[in-house]
Amino acid sequence: MFRRETEFVHWLRTQPRSKARGLILGIGDDAAIVRLSPRYQLILKADMSIEDVHFARRLHPPRSVGHRALARSLSDVAAVGGTPRFALVSLALSRETSRVWIEELYAGMLALGKQFGVVLVGGDTAVLRGGTVVDVTVAGEVRRGKALLRSGAEPGDRIFVSGRLGLSALGLRFLQSSPGLRLLRRSTPPVRPKLSWDVRPIDIREEAIRAHLFPEPRFALGHFLSETHLASALIDVSDGLSTDLDHLCKASGVGARVSANRIPAPKLPDSWSQVRRSTEPIPRPIPDRSRMELALHGGEDYELLFTVPPRKAAKIPPRYRGVPLQCIGEICRSKELLLIRPDGKETVLRPSGYDHFREQ
Amino acid sequence: MFRRETEFVHWLRTQPRSKARGLILGIGDDAAIVRLSPRYQLILKADMSIEDVHFARRLHPPRSVGHRALARSLSDVAAVGGTPRFALVSLALSRETSRVWIEELYAGMLALGKQFGVVLVGGDTAVLRGGTVVDVTVAGEVRRGKALLRSGAEPGDRIFVSGRLGLSALGLRFLQSSPGLRLLRRSTPPVRPKLSWDVRPIDIREEAIRAHLFPEPRFALGHFLSETHLASALIDVSDGLSTDLDHLCKASGVGARVSANRIPAPKLPDSWSQVRRSTEPIPRPIPDRSRMELALHGGEDYELLFTVPPRKAAKIPPRYRGVPLQCIGEICRSKELLLIRPDGKETVLRPSGYDHFREQ
Repeated sequence: MFRRETEFVHWLRTQPRSKARGLILGIGDDAAIVRLSPRYQLILKADMSIEDVHFARRLHPPRSVGHRALARSLSDVAAVGGTPRFALVSLALSRETSRVWIEELYAGMLALGKQFGVVLVGGDTAVLRGGTVVDVTVAGEVRRGKALLRSGAEPGDRIFVSGRLGLSALGLRFLQSSPGLRLLRRSTPPVRPKLSWDVRPIDIREEAIRAHLFPEPRFALGHFLSETHLASALIDVSDGLSTDLDHLCKASGVGARVSANRIPAPKLPDSWSQVRRSTEPIPRPIPDRSRMELALHGGEDYELLFTVPPRKAAKIPPRYRGVPLQCIGEICRSKELLLIRPDGKETVLRPSGYDHFREQ
Repeated sequence: MFRRETEFVHWLRTQPRSKARGLILGIGDDAAIVRLSPRYQLILKADMSIEDVHFARRLHPPRSVGHRALARSLSDVAAVGGTPRFALVSLALSRETSRVWIEELYAGMLALGKQFGVVLVGGDTAVLRGGTVVDVTVAGEVRRGKALLRSGAEPGDRIFVSGRLGLSALGLRFLQSSPGLRLLRRSTPPVRPKLSWDVRPIDIREEAIRAHLFPEPRFALGHFLSETHLASALIDVSDGLSTDLDHLCKASGVGARVSANRIPAPKLPDSWSQVRRSTEPIPRPIPDRSRMELALHGGEDYELLFTVPPRKAAKIPPRYRGVPLQCIGEICRSKELLLIRPDGKETVLRPSGYDHFREQ
């Protein structure tokens, strides 16, 4: 632990950072002062990461905790088609936290920030009884009139999703169950995580763990959709497809019909039934009986879910910068979420992602 | 407690709010989108309020917890001479928290926000084990070139402070010690707190408690100092005069000499020795043996501390909009903080305000 607040702030100010375009006054004064690009609007988003809710110390290396804490807010900036610029980090931690843990946490945030040109400009630190709380606020910008909202979906629009869903939830399950993979995880932090989709990991376990520990916000895709005006509505998949699709539909006043067959669910390894029987307590309970449940309700994938008017649907490429894009269904007028099962039968799709206020 | 996150967000969206100048997209989408005034720079500040560190449920009514949580960040915006515009509130609370407590917390924030034209545009909510954590991020704006930093003080500059210091610490002491006053406190929430300095409360106890529970950010004074270019450096007194003066001097590369006789310390009531012997545990330990110690190290007054070049010092009025302004000393070249005691002797003034990383 740092002995003094000033020691911590001094350490933080000496960390390498992104080229600070627009930074007028950074860490160390009463507040940060920054400049936006002319004719851009300001995007603001805050997201908390809480110990034993969003992460567990024995499962998540601190570098991943930092990466994921920032990635949560960044993904929301991507989900309006914007560009992140500045971040504030509020960190409440127990006195027992080691200095190395804190340094690694920031290393994870700073590395991800650097990758996307996000500068850490401030925040707050305090010591508390209880688990660590990290609250990250991101300030970003979007060109006037280019923001993509949740509320623009119209009946007939095609529903698309990027990447593969349920991979993060699968990765969490592996981390909880396999001591061998925990070694892999421990060896991850010093290496800069490979974030590109194109670098194929060796097997599904490694891929899933990487997706869970170091998710990649989809800025390139968000910009593409906002600049081309192809999407009518956009949201990121943070709580699980079923919940986030429900958010999008509620905001747009519509319903949706999706095909289970088309949802890009992760492959499960042969050892899955064994993994699944793991009895370790989990920080954030998720349903996980099948690959389809992982894909529908898993959450934390930070992929983008978007709708496209039918006449523009053909313009959506099968991949964008290596990230697969898949049409999974269609927006409908009746305000229900329907799932066409592999056997062709329709069932009601209930939003079953994580809800902080609900008893789990 | 709210049963669902959507129920909470719905409730939040129905709360009365400030006239939303510049608000493009508020609570309910992936992120908030807002517009700043042309030719203004963006101010960003985050501050946490933690249960049993910054507040205690048995001492602070939820309306005060909300008010103080927002006031902390607002005061920092005042301390660069800026105007607050938007706020994000991240709230982590235990499942046992009542819905009324949450509503009152927001009522406190929203009332203060309304007073200064600050619109709540987003945030995050989660349930945690352990005490409540409120992290408030404020986005404000300041005209290009008008921001007042900590780092501009020069040797010879006069040091000024607004209001009375140590009042908040005194109020906390009263709250901890007197059952009668706790009744007064309980009766405070439903009434809109009177925030103007000119409305004189009946006695010092009530005044101190009000200063502690409902501190008023000094925007008018901050604007005055920034627009008139009278101040060379500015900081708010949040950690205590000794600590914040040290911050200002370190940032400016100078020292300071202040006169104990000139520091606007609170009057102590006759019952003070009795109050002081109170054995109740305190959430945030502060030295409190004398009125001078309260004024020097008490903290949470959210007054402004600023320096003025000697040739401009005469232009500082004795009061600005009812708030007293007092010259308490002078900036010097040698990098030490010195206190001239009432008996004329000089002693070294050690920064002894609150430090989260130090064992208290």
